[in-house]
Amino acid sequence: MLLDEDRLFPADNTTRAIARRLYSTVRDLPIVSPHGHTDPRWYAENEAFPDPAKLFVVPDHYIFRMLYSQGIPLEDLGIPTRDGTPVETDPRVIWRRFAENYFLFRGTPTRTWLDHAFATLFDLDVRLSAETADLYYDRISERLAQPEYRPRALFERFNIEVIATTESPLDDLRHHETIRSSGWKGRVVTAYRPDPVVDPDFAGFSENVAKLGEITGCDVSTFAGYLDAHRRRREFFKSYGATSTDHGHPSAATADLSTAEAETLYQRVMAGEASAADAELFRAQMLTEMAGMSLEDGLVMQIHPGSVRNHNPKLLARFGRDMGSDIPSRTDYVRALKPLLDRYGNERDLTVILFTLDETSYSRELAPLAGHYPCLKLGPSWWFFDSPEGMKRYHELVTETAGFYNTVGFNDDTRAFPSIPARHDVARRVDCGYLAGLVATHRLDEDEAQEVAHDLAYGLAKKAYRL
Amino acid sequence: MLLDEDRLFPADNTTRAIARRLYSTVRDLPIVSPHGHTDPRWYAENEAFPDPAKLFVVPDHYIFRMLYSQGIPLEDLGIPTRDGTPVETDPRVIWRRFAENYFLFRGTPTRTWLDHAFATLFDLDVRLSAETADLYYDRISERLAQPEYRPRALFERFNIEVIATTESPLDDLRHHETIRSSGWKGRVVTAYRPDPVVDPDFAGFSENVAKLGEITGCDVSTFAGYLDAHRRRREFFKSYGATSTDHGHPSAATADLSTAEAETLYQRVMAGEASAADAELFRAQMLTEMAGMSLEDGLVMQIHPGSVRNHNPKLLARFGRDMGSDIPSRTDYVRALKPLLDRYGNERDLTVILFTLDETSYSRELAPLAGHYPCLKLGPSWWFFDSPEGMKRYHELVTETAGFYNTVGFNDDTRAFPSIPARHDVARRVDCGYLAGLVATHRLDEDEAQEVAHDLAYGLAKKAYRL
Amino acid sequence: MLLDEDRLFPADNTTRAIARRLYSTVRDLPIVSPHGHTDPRWYAENEAFPDPAKLFVVPDHYIFRMLYSQGIPLEDLGIPTRDGTPVETDPRVIWRRFAENYFLFRGTPTRTWLDHAFATLFDLDVRLSAETADLYYDRISERLAQPEYRPRALFERFNIEVIATTESPLDDLRHHETIRSSGWKGRVVTAYRPDPVVDPDFAGFSENVAKLGEITGCDVSTFAGYLDAHRRRREFFKSYGATSTDHGHPSAATADLSTAEAETLYQRVMAGEASAADAELFRAQMLTEMAGMSLEDGLVMQIHPGSVRNHNPKLLARFGRDMGSDIPSRTDYVRALKPLLDRYGNERDLTVILFTLDETSYSRELAPLAGHYPCLKLGPSWWFFDSPEGMKRYHELVTETAGFYNTVGFNDDTRAFPSIPARHDVARRVDCGYLAGLVATHRLDEDEAQEVAHDLAYGLAKKAYRL
Repeated sequence: MLLDEDRLFPADNTTRAIARRLYSTVRDLPIVSPHGHTDPRWYAENEAFPDPAKLFVVPDHYIFRMLYSQGIPLEDLGIPTRDGTPVETDPRVIWRRFAENYFLFRGTPTRTWLDHAFATLFDLDVRLSAETADLYYDRISERLAQPEYRPRALFERFNIEVIATTESPLDDLRHHETIRSSGWKGRVVTAYRPDPVVDPDFAGFSENVAKLGEITGCDVSTFAGYLDAHRRRREFFKSYGATSTDHGHPSAATADLSTAEAETLYQRVMAGEASAADAELFRAQMLTEMAGMSLEDGLVMQIHPGSVRNHNPKLLARFGRDMGSDIPSRTDYVRALKPLLDRYGNERDLTVILFTLDETSYSRELAPLAGHYPCLKLGPSWWFFDSPEGMKRYHELVTETAGFYNTVGFNDDTRAFPSIPARHDVARRVDCGYLAGLVATHRLDEDEAQEVAHDLAYGLAKKAYRL
Repeated sequence: MLLDEDRLFPADNTTRAIARRLYSTVRDLPIVSPHGHTDPRWYAENEAFPDPAKLFVVPDHYIFRMLYSQGIPLEDLGIPTRDGTPVETDPRVIWRRFAENYFLFRGTPTRTWLDHAFATLFDLDVRLSAETADLYYDRISERLAQPEYRPRALFERFNIEVIATTESPLDDLRHHETIRSSGWKGRVVTAYRPDPVVDPDFAGFSENVAKLGEITGCDVSTFAGYLDAHRRRREFFKSYGATSTDHGHPSAATADLSTAEAETLYQRVMAGEASAADAELFRAQMLTEMAGMSLEDGLVMQIHPGSVRNHNPKLLARFGRDMGSDIPSRTDYVRALKPLLDRYGNERDLTVILFTLDETSYSRELAPLAGHYPCLKLGPSWWFFDSPEGMKRYHELVTETAGFYNTVGFNDDTRAFPSIPARHDVARRVDCGYLAGLVATHRLDEDEAQEVAHDLAYGLAKKAYRL
Repeated sequence: MLLDEDRLFPADNTTRAIARRLYSTVRDLPIVSPHGHTDPRWYAENEAFPDPAKLFVVPDHYIFRMLYSQGIPLEDLGIPTRDGTPVETDPRVIWRRFAENYFLFRGTPTRTWLDHAFATLFDLDVRLSAETADLYYDRISERLAQPEYRPRALFERFNIEVIATTESPLDDLRHHETIRSSGWKGRVVTAYRPDPVVDPDFAGFSENVAKLGEITGCDVSTFAGYLDAHRRRREFFKSYGATSTDHGHPSAATADLSTAEAETLYQRVMAGEASAADAELFRAQMLTEMAGMSLEDGLVMQIHPGSVRNHNPKLLARFGRDMGSDIPSRTDYVRALKPLLDRYGNERDLTVILFTLDETSYSRELAPLAGHYPCLKLGPSWWFFDSPEGMKRYHELVTETAGFYNTVGFNDDTRAFPSIPARHDVARRVDCGYLAGLVATHRLDEDEAQEVAHDLAYGLAKKAYRL
């Protein structure tokens, strides 16, 4: 049996019993997924997923990074190369490689998510291994051909109330348009992710900005015009349901330059003369500008800093971005956010949601900041820390200083569609386990814990993201 | 019922039973409170506390920072503005606002402390909420008017053996004089907190130093005279029972300049020509000077570094210092303390107690330092980490390297008088829970755990602070 | 009774029962000790250990640092001074001092290791204290005189399959030669620790390099010749069983200079003109060079960064190195290792094992790096963190991102011979406890946990170290 009814609940009997009771009140709540990276094309075109390898292995960097770390070439897993050098194309061969090495995922959340999908979607009840690889492959292939396994059907089966995707300002949102005009009732909204036109180090930055000018009809030769282009594009995104923006900067640096300084910096950046420090300053200034726009147009702002992207240059050259070699690094918030907070920190109508890949900042910086500034909220434990132990640490390090109501509940941040219910289920179980611990040690009454469980699973995300 | 007999003990039955036994041997020990910020005027004048809001809400930055983070203006909580702009004055209105939002404190130590005070001092047994706000208000008001709720009576009821307050060198200790000459037997001692005359960035620094010169009759135009003024003032503080000094610097930086270098630096600082680096260096030098004086006069030295004070400038401008916007930041000890330790680290007659707001330093820096240098001891988990999870992390991260006997037991560090018994009770319970875990996993025998529990609750603080 | 059968297992009954079952399958596995600092002379000469103090107290910096921190002079513990100033010589007096202060070790792993040795080797079943000091002293002395307590007999009794010692490139490996030619079957191998000829800040560095030239017959006046000398010496070490190298740098900095730049830097370093930055750069470059050599000759590379050595200069002057005043410090890996990883990170035939004294790097840097790069593996929790809580944190922070198979199982890193079985036993118990927790919360099946327990106790170390 792949899934135990009591999985992830605390082992102690008293606490487990409380956790079970709490979980029973939230397990069937609809999924609110305010931040993620699923492909809107799926919901727009509603085509069948092609095969087990393309559904589970090829698009999931959690999976292929682990296999790669153990010496398996990405080519053998069917990851396409940039220059078109041929790679493995037989999905069954890829699947078998994955199955043989499934033991590598012992103790990881990936294992938990996969088992959940295998059991609940494909009624599999033996462990994946070399021996069961073909059984799995055949069962999954067979099901994927059925209409109940098309994206929209799964969306409904997953009980998703609303999901956000993330698009570049240069995206024409055509998939969102298709969804809207299709008459399908599933609620899929976009989110404004301006990195390609905000980060001078982003590949193709100046062409991107030029394109932004064209699309919006704004004169991007001045900083004011460039900001205006953002404003218009944000409006366009709002018209497709966007309630948030998303900023994936290397650091949390913010700045608050004078108009003249900002203009000069912009000109240097656009002329391609930006030093590394200029690029950092420009990104920093743009966070503050975006906060200002959020105060104007009501979009909730998300800051996801601290990832050293593409740490492995050979992999980047051969396979491109997002190949599992983004590595977290030490991240400061207290000094970095000060310019933005000095300007907008006391605004009650602004919501800035902070994420981190540096867990040392939870108790030292993020909880104290969020426990004071009206504009700040804390996002859930993110990426590598979207895991049972990661969530436990998050709660233990954040709650005593920031409470529950300066957090925004769970979001899944995934591009792996079948993992969505699993991830929300893990979060609900771990949250209930944590709350049960508070109840068992008489730090919280059970009726209160029930309210909090509901808020963490559903209410807080909806409210914070204005969905 | 607000308080369960087993609160904060581990959930596991075996461990809980051990924790109960250990706790029963320490629960009634007197309170030794060697470091805190209660107002000596209370004990001197012994007047009734005015009303529930002024007792619990207005002076407690733990409380109003949380309310502020959720969008409640400080004005609405009766926090006075610096320019006299009117704020809420009706204590019942303030109390109701607090009560309505009491759910925000779920999972925080503030909730635990408050419930303890409500239950034990005011015999309240329903939860505070919008519905019970008036019941609470009336009950507390009624009691505060009774003689048993005056400060001295509470002091005795709390079973406080000795409490330290903290005063500036410029303070004339008149309240301490009043207490002494009153014939009351409560032991209230002062502590020497020289930040206002040691930190060039402190508001009014040079006037403060001038005043120090006047008070002591020392010629503060030279560094030697300035140091002498400290020596005399420390003697004065000792005559009012002081056994310790307290240093709240932004970092743990220390320095060991030559006499000539120190003199030059002092002149630059006094002339108001100090750069930020000069100010930091002066504070650094003064920590080493103070250590030297401690070796002479026996005062125990406390270093509390790592808080970025007044992070929110708008709040500072409107309401002043200590308004809940002090934020911890990354703090180095290993290199920062080296100059002081190179000079005095091996002195067995010196005691320097280190605190931190950066929990990453517990296992990496503080425990290894305290587990080696004779002069160093570790203070308990501090401020935001004066909490059940904070204490648990402290024990788990510190004990294996530094043991118990390089720590100084608990201190409450509070300005919230009614929270003192609650805080010591939390510490005793969490300590016993931790020790019970060691016993249950056979890392410590129960008779030893009992000795350690006693030391953590009472003996270590008394010994380390020479009380 | 000093040792409980269930020590270190989780307190919860369900989890403890699983832990017991898992442990029963690994408790009697042979010890593989691929990294440590025992003295090869012991196995070569096989002489009796002189007395209890010299066996347990004098050589163990874990012990005397704690005693020193509480004000006991190292002289009183018989630690020899560099200038020959007399110190305590009576081993019984030293032992009594230690015994009187044994309570200081409550809650530390040292206590656990010692009790294990006292109980299993010397059949002691009362606690060490002032009262039992002589009982202990007499019992241990008596046993040490017996042939079963000679090093080789203990080696066999400990069930050590293979142990590595660590030697400088300048060492002639005479003890290893003696062991080899003695006909004794115990497998003792060396490891290549080049710090004395790689670190320009090492005392006697340039003489050391000159000696390396002499020994190898290489012309060390050029960088190429110097590298060649390393190559030859590594071959020599391999001929004495070495399968690994060991690098104890202050930071994890690596570099990848051009041949010309490296040559220039080498000349500056050899001329004694190296700045602090040059020294750091030279060490950094040498890590990359050593990785290249490892790819050539198959030696596994270990990097142990982050210790500020000899933090206490007075102690260094009086007693020399390794006197318990090495203090961990903040350590970056993500940027520091990039030059080495850019060059060799994707090599599947290279193994680089990373250790840390900065636990914040586990989840933020080390697990993400090891979970991606084929050449990287993580060493176990090290030094101060070779402890039950340290191991627990390691598993919780590492496993979810890196899995188990990017780690190398346990190694003891000790110079305290009698502690070896205790340390491996602690690791096996804590590992089984952690795995039992995964089983109890249904994150891992028990048959899988059993496999992992075996790998952590035995298989992973053997495989990673190519033993």
